[in-house]
Amino acid sequence: MRTLYDFPPSGNCHKVRMMLSMLGLEYEKRTIDLLKGEQNTPAFLELNPRHKVPVLVDDGVIISDSAAILVYLVRKYGGKDWYPDDAEAMAEIQKWLSFSVNEVFNGLALSRAMVIFNRPMDADAVHKIADIALAVLESRLKESDWLALDRPTIADIACYPYAAAIGEGNISLAAYPAIRAWLARVEDLPGCVAMAPYQPAH
Amino acid sequence: MRTLYDFPPSGNCHKVRMMLSMLGLEYEKRTIDLLKGEQNTPAFLELNPRHKVPVLVDDGVIISDSAAILVYLVRKYGGKDWYPDDAEAMAEIQKWLSFSVNEVFNGLALSRAMVIFNRPMDADAVHKIADIALAVLESRLKESDWLALDRPTIADIACYPYAAAIGEGNISLAAYPAIRAWLARVEDLPGCVAMAPYQPAH
Repeated sequence: MRTLYDFPPSGNCHKVRMMLSMLGLEYEKRTIDLLKGEQNTPAFLELNPRHKVPVLVDDGVIISDSAAILVYLVRKYGGKDWYPDDAEAMAEIQKWLSFSVNEVFNGLALSRAMVIFNRPMDADAVHKIADIALAVLESRLKESDWLALDRPTIADIACYPYAAAIGEGNISLAAYPAIRAWLARVEDLPGCVAMAPYQPAH
Repeated sequence: MRTLYDFPPSGNCHKVRMMLSMLGLEYEKRTIDLLKGEQNTPAFLELNPRHKVPVLVDDGVIISDSAAILVYLVRKYGGKDWYPDDAEAMAEIQKWLSFSVNEVFNGLALSRAMVIFNRPMDADAVHKIADIALAVLESRLKESDWLALDRPTIADIACYPYAAAIGEGNISLAAYPAIRAWLARVEDLPGCVAMAPYQPAH
């Protein structure tokens, strides 16, 4: 029994949907509608006091936080190719997991949230972080096909959805050919589920 | 040869200083003065295109990002007590590493940065995240002495500095006895270096 507490437009939830699909794992979804505040109910806060999706419940084990769920899934079901064991490789991947929580979320995800959810924000500050996020990604992806270790790892999964959806934040990837090529490579991975366009009526 | 690119008031740098001390590892420091913009020089961006300290160079291996450096140090020099090997335990720790990058930084660190560095910010938004960060920490620490796994791990190191320094953000821990007791427990760990008060003239 495996249940994903999910919000369809969420890129953080999408990371988990992608990984579950790529590992061939069955699950059911329970929608937590963030626009209706369902992440603030006492029942949901029992699962995650951080008021956030995704949460995965896997045979009674509760795991919250998208990066943590990726670590859990690949270490439990996917082997060490996705997240290896030696200090240097783990640190390299952790750097991108932190980057996904920091610049990718605070820059790319919030640029999109301002547009699709009309969330009031300091647009200049958010776009400045988005510029750094895109510059860092482009610079790395000019040198390598993948973010860490020259092969697909959870670093790529963690950074993919909000980069793929940045057009919905009215930011063009025209000047970022290496990012565009990487998005296509991620989408070609076996079992990958591409980030879907935002649909307001869900 | 081990060099830490360091900014003395930075809590993210302090995590690395703590861990190096707790593992008994010698190193030298090179100050990157963020207030003078030294994180934006071409030479520094070669080390870390994210414009951020800390960066650790360990026998030629360059590791940036405080959480990544913690993972590297404990896996290379500290054994698996600090960051174990099984899926569930790793996910539990990763959750707190993400929390340290997200709520702890965006709430606790920025509350302090607004005060000590006079950084212009949306104070209400930052304080709202700080409230969630403190509530989540207090709730966990009422149940357990440590953030993850009922023993000290890099989860505690990653969350300690900006919680310890939150008084400098003019936020009181009077209502958070479990956090205060945990800060004291962290500071009692062998080799721990407590977060020092901010000193403007560094």
